[in-house]
Amino acid sequence: MSQPILLAVAGMGNNISALFQGAEYYRKLAAEGLSEEDFPGIKLPRIGGIGVSDIEFVAAFDVHPNKVGSKFGDAVLASPNNYPRLDVDLPNPDVIVDEGLPADFTPQQFDAVVSRLRESGAEVLLYSLPTGLQWAATAYAKAALEAGVAFVNCTPELAARDEELLAAYEAAGVPLIGDDLASHLGTSVVHRVLLGLLSDRGLTLSSSYQLNFGGNEDFRNLRDAGASKRQSKLNALAQEGVDTSRVEVIPSAGFIGQLKDNKVAILNVEGQGWAGTPVSLDLKLKVQDSSNAAGVIIDLIRVAAAAKRVNAGGFSAAAVPVLKSPAGGHPKYSAADVRESLKQLDGVTAGQ
Amino acid sequence: MSQPILLAVAGMGNNISALFQGAEYYRKLAAEGLSEEDFPGIKLPRIGGIGVSDIEFVAAFDVHPNKVGSKFGDAVLASPNNYPRLDVDLPNPDVIVDEGLPADFTPQQFDAVVSRLRESGAEVLLYSLPTGLQWAATAYAKAALEAGVAFVNCTPELAARDEELLAAYEAAGVPLIGDDLASHLGTSVVHRVLLGLLSDRGLTLSSSYQLNFGGNEDFRNLRDAGASKRQSKLNALAQEGVDTSRVEVIPSAGFIGQLKDNKVAILNVEGQGWAGTPVSLDLKLKVQDSSNAAGVIIDLIRVAAAAKRVNAGGFSAAAVPVLKSPAGGHPKYSAADVRESLKQLDGVTAGQ
Amino acid sequence: MSQPILLAVAGMGNNISALFQGAEYYRKLAAEGLSEEDFPGIKLPRIGGIGVSDIEFVAAFDVHPNKVGSKFGDAVLASPNNYPRLDVDLPNPDVIVDEGLPADFTPQQFDAVVSRLRESGAEVLLYSLPTGLQWAATAYAKAALEAGVAFVNCTPELAARDEELLAAYEAAGVPLIGDDLASHLGTSVVHRVLLGLLSDRGLTLSSSYQLNFGGNEDFRNLRDAGASKRQSKLNALAQEGVDTSRVEVIPSAGFIGQLKDNKVAILNVEGQGWAGTPVSLDLKLKVQDSSNAAGVIIDLIRVAAAAKRVNAGGFSAAAVPVLKSPAGGHPKYSAADVRESLKQLDGVTAGQ
Amino acid sequence: MSQPILLAVAGMGNNISALFQGAEYYRKLAAEGLSEEDFPGIKLPRIGGIGVSDIEFVAAFDVHPNKVGSKFGDAVLASPNNYPRLDVDLPNPDVIVDEGLPADFTPQQFDAVVSRLRESGAEVLLYSLPTGLQWAATAYAKAALEAGVAFVNCTPELAARDEELLAAYEAAGVPLIGDDLASHLGTSVVHRVLLGLLSDRGLTLSSSYQLNFGGNEDFRNLRDAGASKRQSKLNALAQEGVDTSRVEVIPSAGFIGQLKDNKVAILNVEGQGWAGTPVSLDLKLKVQDSSNAAGVIIDLIRVAAAAKRVNAGGFSAAAVPVLKSPAGGHPKYSAADVRESLKQLDGVTAGQ
Repeated sequence: MSQPILLAVAGMGNNISALFQGAEYYRKLAAEGLSEEDFPGIKLPRIGGIGVSDIEFVAAFDVHPNKVGSKFGDAVLASPNNYPRLDVDLPNPDVIVDEGLPADFTPQQFDAVVSRLRESGAEVLLYSLPTGLQWAATAYAKAALEAGVAFVNCTPELAARDEELLAAYEAAGVPLIGDDLASHLGTSVVHRVLLGLLSDRGLTLSSSYQLNFGGNEDFRNLRDAGASKRQSKLNALAQEGVDTSRVEVIPSAGFIGQLKDNKVAILNVEGQGWAGTPVSLDLKLKVQDSSNAAGVIIDLIRVAAAAKRVNAGGFSAAAVPVLKSPAGGHPKYSAADVRESLKQLDGVTAGQ
Repeated sequence: MSQPILLAVAGMGNNISALFQGAEYYRKLAAEGLSEEDFPGIKLPRIGGIGVSDIEFVAAFDVHPNKVGSKFGDAVLASPNNYPRLDVDLPNPDVIVDEGLPADFTPQQFDAVVSRLRESGAEVLLYSLPTGLQWAATAYAKAALEAGVAFVNCTPELAARDEELLAAYEAAGVPLIGDDLASHLGTSVVHRVLLGLLSDRGLTLSSSYQLNFGGNEDFRNLRDAGASKRQSKLNALAQEGVDTSRVEVIPSAGFIGQLKDNKVAILNVEGQGWAGTPVSLDLKLKVQDSSNAAGVIIDLIRVAAAAKRVNAGGFSAAAVPVLKSPAGGHPKYSAADVRESLKQLDGVTAGQ
Repeated sequence: MSQPILLAVAGMGNNISALFQGAEYYRKLAAEGLSEEDFPGIKLPRIGGIGVSDIEFVAAFDVHPNKVGSKFGDAVLASPNNYPRLDVDLPNPDVIVDEGLPADFTPQQFDAVVSRLRESGAEVLLYSLPTGLQWAATAYAKAALEAGVAFVNCTPELAARDEELLAAYEAAGVPLIGDDLASHLGTSVVHRVLLGLLSDRGLTLSSSYQLNFGGNEDFRNLRDAGASKRQSKLNALAQEGVDTSRVEVIPSAGFIGQLKDNKVAILNVEGQGWAGTPVSLDLKLKVQDSSNAAGVIIDLIRVAAAAKRVNAGGFSAAAVPVLKSPAGGHPKYSAADVRESLKQLDGVTAGQ
Repeated sequence: MSQPILLAVAGMGNNISALFQGAEYYRKLAAEGLSEEDFPGIKLPRIGGIGVSDIEFVAAFDVHPNKVGSKFGDAVLASPNNYPRLDVDLPNPDVIVDEGLPADFTPQQFDAVVSRLRESGAEVLLYSLPTGLQWAATAYAKAALEAGVAFVNCTPELAARDEELLAAYEAAGVPLIGDDLASHLGTSVVHRVLLGLLSDRGLTLSSSYQLNFGGNEDFRNLRDAGASKRQSKLNALAQEGVDTSRVEVIPSAGFIGQLKDNKVAILNVEGQGWAGTPVSLDLKLKVQDSSNAAGVIIDLIRVAAAAKRVNAGGFSAAAVPVLKSPAGGHPKYSAADVRESLKQLDGVTAGQ
């Protein structure tokens, strides 16, 4: 085991539960003798030499009364979190959840976050509050910068795409990784490859739709406020040969409590082949929604920590494959850039 | 309209019905003013300058009593063919279906096929008998060679992969295009991209299966004799990161007459993501089976005819994207080879 | 052909398009020689001697600018209606669509409706405005009563369950048929039989959900205002042995324009069998939404007209099987009551 | 806990594993304080006073080398059995599996079975060998009769429908319960209710199919020899208003080892509603195949044991709801007969 990431988190939702429990799950597999090359669900066992269980939670911020003031290990399992309780023993890190910033935070409150980050020794601040709070993303990003802590933005808010902010991180030699994580196996990527395949094979798209539903808080929130999410998901499907005006996306078709943290997506694709005869595809995708996020967060925080350890400020191309909106945009980065960035993180660390 | 392909066919099954009716379907669309760039289900409106309706049937061989001795236009719609009757007027080419070769054919019978091909003026012989008759594929390929007619092999039998045969075609300056067409939107390619996506995203394949069923004669035949087809379909799924020992394929789960020429495929993929939590995909694909073949045959015969017109003997890389087993194997050809081959067919023809 | 129903309609939506076109569809089948016993989708070829094509539209009310003032045959096909245009010739009845009542209608406007009904000679007024307009249901029901015209209420608003109103209809000898049509093959009835089967066989329901989506105006309206519809749908699933607290229903998961007048429903049922081992059912139901209504409306209006012709005022038990909330409630009526009522409508008519 | 059923079994397949493990599963639930009224998957907690864990295995016959000569508890888990190992402690009854009868058994071998049944003290012999061995069903039934042991036939072979055999059981005062268990939640019953619903609502069946597949030995066997099973399953769908000539059934679409003892069924129903417009239902059913049998076997053996205890020879109507082909045929029994029979088994037993 290499030196663990000293991790602070802003937001204590299901994603953090998945990350926390999952790290212990893999620790248990390793203890049972499974090689990390064979870990299920893991593509890169090491990034910058850091393994998937090498995480130490050192600070946490949230605003929910069930969480603020509780010990980390209790807060992360408290309602409304409903990620399943995995069959592993969990530690209870000696960390009390701090009250997070309110929308009308004072300079004193901001400074308190900076101090907390500093005194915790955190290497990385993972930002994963609910979608839509641009002010919060900006505030935590600025606090991390001031504390010299690498910042990872899981949400669609602007952070790494904020050129001024990115320049400040670069100047300070602090990593800034974002924005918006691309789910491990998201509806969008499945939909995208099916539409792409249709086009690539020379069939004509007639119509297509995608519905998502589930039982965590996201599906309650998105049910009413899905318009921007809808557009973002349509953008994710856009590619050569695909007419997205023929595609409908429903980000939240409904909150179905019994599904808990599972997400179900229904996809339909109708097309025309030779002589205009129809082809149809109907697909049902079921995933553990927060595992879908944590499986990617594990890469983002390792990139951030590894970059920090080699003093690589600003954005790292190694994070590109798991981001929806990387700094500078996807077209800026080639597969070679990603490989090179990963090598750099590995190489230098290995040399230490 | 450019000069039509003078086409002979060995086998008068649903694929030929789809090809014949489809050519008229597109002729009708063009007559209604639709640009060929907007034809549904067509990726390449022109290959070597030849459009999708530029086909003239000049000879046909079959052994079924419902077909032998009938006029082409009657035979192609006769039972057990059950491709749908499209809403287009059909011509009835002045061609009588000849008795095809029996398994124990005599030299005289072979010579009769050669003569028929010669006197018909055929440019291309399209071979699409039922799967499994290697002797027939070889015999028709040799007859075509002797008659100086380009040969297209739609089936998994060896023809273009038979090195001796290929050398003979090359020496004679006659095109030989094969083997085994890759369906327009086949179950294999859909299954393959889903398995590839899972691997690419770093999830672990737990298990997967694929079942195919339909109501044409193929599904009756394959029900009992699917072992080689099963292996061929498993091969088609093999790729980096995919453990096909975890995949089961049932080429024919059953003959369901009411489906007629439709094929339905059921796919399931079970995987593990972060912390070993499950992901599952269930997909139903429904296609018009013979359109799925004809949408590819249209490219194969255009490549063959265009190659013949420019005296390009042997195999043409332009056919690679629509073949399962091209001469020499897939790895031999790059995307650039395909583009170059297409350009060559276009360029020279255009210069005529 | 028996004497046609002289029919007035309040609301000119897809249901009326389906009813109007469908009547002609069956007329065409009959003209082609098909016996009405073999009509697809028809359980009772005759009710009170009236066939499914025996409809004559004599008056119509609507408020949409695309419809008011137009001829019936134009209005019924005008946007936002998007029921498919069936492959039949349509007559264009000599009826102009009248402006319907506004929410703040005056006594004069009310009287105009009564006069219009009287002068049209209508036997039945079919009420099928959008769900939720209790004032409109009441107003049209009172106008019909005053005009001596039978009233059919397709919606969940109170009419036949309004005891005072029912008594007035009974006293006047005018039929009042309602409330709320039960779709021909609705999601609720499919869901209900699956849940009932599980219980009947002795398996334990773990959880279940139902999502509905489509491309007509209903799905746009219900997306935001589905709470009462949700409860009504849950009620429809309630039965002995079924714990509906384990069931979630989403009346509109989304408006998907490309589906037009089609409705898709996704059902899931999870249960436990012997030793607590799981069983799961996943079902997709696709229907032509307005045919699903018209297939039932055809029975309601025939019951109403037949009852009027034999001077049977008030409610008729013959309508019970196709209503969600019949006057007095479902438990009041046995299968024998329904048969008896049908016989009465038939018998007396036959005796005329 | 009442007096356990002393049970002998002919055949040690997955069904016996499910029965054996399930009995312990419910014993554990009871020990944890769950009332038997709340047992998941159990409709009748008591039959004749006997609970679902009241089973004692006293003899077993099989021919598989992995099983013969082994202790019961080992044999029941041995390959090719692949019912899941439930999370309960299992006893290992002091019973060695005897070699079962071969097809050409001698009188001596037959007598050995009779003796073994006698000396074991068995009350009931449960016959659940693979389908198709009529000689075996007859032989074991005769042996049980001679030993005075009640006989339960889970298979489609003739036993309770063999009038001569039934008369002999009646004369001897020994229960004979069969034939052919109706799965707890089988594909047939689900398919049947959907077809019945369509008819009941007045829609017209266009076509329908049903495919079954799974990973236990049944699906390997049925793949090649499914013709009689197909007809039996079609019979099970027959009902008023359903034209089974429009239905196709594939008893085994394939053996998919990864599914182990799970069964998956795919159902499709296409119909026509008002104006001939289409309705379609697609359903996927997934069950634990052997739980589906054991959940019914538990009723059959309790009926048999309770009947034996009250000296009710021959068939008992209490078994009718869980049999496909009860003695005398389904129409012979009313729901009242079943209730009466259950009461008789309960009442007399209670009075002891």
